[in-house]
Amino acid sequence: MTTSYADRLHAATLAKKTPALVGLDPRFDWLPSDVVGNARERLDDPVAIAAAAFEEFCIRIIDVVAPLVPAVKPQAAFFEEYGPDGCLALCRVIRYARQSGLMVICDAKRGDIGTTAEAYARAYLAGEDPQAAIWGADALTVSPYLGRDTLEPFLNVAAERGAGIYVLVRTSNPQAGSFQDPIADGMTTYQRVAAAVEEMSAASVGTSGYGPMGAVVGATYPKELNELRAAMPHVPLLIPGYGSQGGTAADVAGAFDANGLGAVVNNSRGINFSWRSGKHAEEFGAAKWEQAVEASTRAMIADLAASTTAGVLA
Amino acid sequence: MTTSYADRLHAATLAKKTPALVGLDPRFDWLPSDVVGNARERLDDPVAIAAAAFEEFCIRIIDVVAPLVPAVKPQAAFFEEYGPDGCLALCRVIRYARQSGLMVICDAKRGDIGTTAEAYARAYLAGEDPQAAIWGADALTVSPYLGRDTLEPFLNVAAERGAGIYVLVRTSNPQAGSFQDPIADGMTTYQRVAAAVEEMSAASVGTSGYGPMGAVVGATYPKELNELRAAMPHVPLLIPGYGSQGGTAADVAGAFDANGLGAVVNNSRGINFSWRSGKHAEEFGAAKWEQAVEASTRAMIADLAASTTAGVLA
Repeated sequence: MTTSYADRLHAATLAKKTPALVGLDPRFDWLPSDVVGNARERLDDPVAIAAAAFEEFCIRIIDVVAPLVPAVKPQAAFFEEYGPDGCLALCRVIRYARQSGLMVICDAKRGDIGTTAEAYARAYLAGEDPQAAIWGADALTVSPYLGRDTLEPFLNVAAERGAGIYVLVRTSNPQAGSFQDPIADGMTTYQRVAAAVEEMSAASVGTSGYGPMGAVVGATYPKELNELRAAMPHVPLLIPGYGSQGGTAADVAGAFDANGLGAVVNNSRGINFSWRSGKHAEEFGAAKWEQAVEASTRAMIADLAASTTAGVLA
Repeated sequence: MTTSYADRLHAATLAKKTPALVGLDPRFDWLPSDVVGNARERLDDPVAIAAAAFEEFCIRIIDVVAPLVPAVKPQAAFFEEYGPDGCLALCRVIRYARQSGLMVICDAKRGDIGTTAEAYARAYLAGEDPQAAIWGADALTVSPYLGRDTLEPFLNVAAERGAGIYVLVRTSNPQAGSFQDPIADGMTTYQRVAAAVEEMSAASVGTSGYGPMGAVVGATYPKELNELRAAMPHVPLLIPGYGSQGGTAADVAGAFDANGLGAVVNNSRGINFSWRSGKHAEEFGAAKWEQAVEASTRAMIADLAASTTAGVLA
């Protein structure tokens, strides 16, 4: 019997006592010199060096955060920039994260029609058994523009494997509203997507009360976040935009239910590169970058606990 | 001096005298037995076998269609389903297509915010120089849901490198309208996206009269196709949905300008697997599958020439 994604995520959140999600956004120009040095020592090709350095950087972050948080969110784009070598690094990072007891949300924002969507779903959505899909992820981010029928293949594979998908509903960028905000028949586009997501997710809720279809809602739009939490009571939320993009713990407070569940809040740059600028950079610097990663992760966990119902998890 | 994507595509279309685009959609269960046999002879791992078979299948299609059409459109999802091995096969297929004188539209429907979008753009959009990006494509399909600011990084890289992007405007699937059709302030969502795409593309038109930002508009919605052609006079169109999805040459006639330019029409399954069913299957069958690929490509070219202004190219 497969345990649903939402139930597994809740168990992991309760176990780690926090809904903090650590993004894995490696950027070559910003990597610690020891990581790049290690790759350069054994490789010559610049692409192979970047891919190997990404892998080591992410694995060392995973080693730091695995005892602290329920999940990580690798951003596929940064790996894909380094071609097949980068893709292999992403695959290995996902596998390593799962072996370390973390859940993995692959942030690849895929979307296509019919059997093509099915191919993406089969590729990324391993769900409960990390071996069930080659990319081994627990969940995948998905774009809704193509229409409701294009979300169904993702949902079907997710439900079958105990995997999750997070549909883009309200994104965190400044012009998120250009196509998400216009009001037709009394509803914005994002409200219309939210209604579809709620309906599709509610049809197969687990014991947690949440279904396999989640939603991405940016921390940078707290008013919409509150509204969407109410509109999608059976939908697990993935909240980007905390930290570097300007979202605060107070901004994301509306994402959680009374038990501090129902949402995960992501921080990528603010943790991955906390040793490059800000107070943890001053305290630790590049030489102790893993300590900065740990301190910034702990700071985020404390911040969420202090200003949201996630505090009840502790 | 870089030649723009639209100018290069027009030159290729004039040279091949057709706007037919051949999709590359390999599916393992449907591959010719000789292709699978070749991979099985030298490999043991099922994933490696699939990736190698995809590569050979696509390369042999490219060998057949390179003299006939201006461009091919590999579908990333089918390759990604086989993980890093599949990604490597995609990379090699793109490279081989360009070495064979074809332009390549990578159909990956990417989209993300800010520097993440930039990473995708740098990864896929090689433009005029196939070496300028690791995936080596001339153009990439892109999803607009996240907003106008998320299209700009793609446009900037495209303009710089002589590459193109095709933004999803009106997709070919049955429920394309679920989020694309609602009318706000007198405009559907797809019309709103189209207006943004026209404005962004018109700002940098080449000598062809078209800009670097194209649009995906499905052949399965001929009324919307005619309307969108008129609304986006500076936007090159990519038309999926011809053939297996039901679109006819008459349905796509509205996509072209008076010179038979301004659009490419894609056919994937109807060419890749024309030897599995239909009249070319009867004539050639699996043993002569490449001849079926050639015959179905020629039939599509003739069909477009007979029923659209693409006839003036011949």
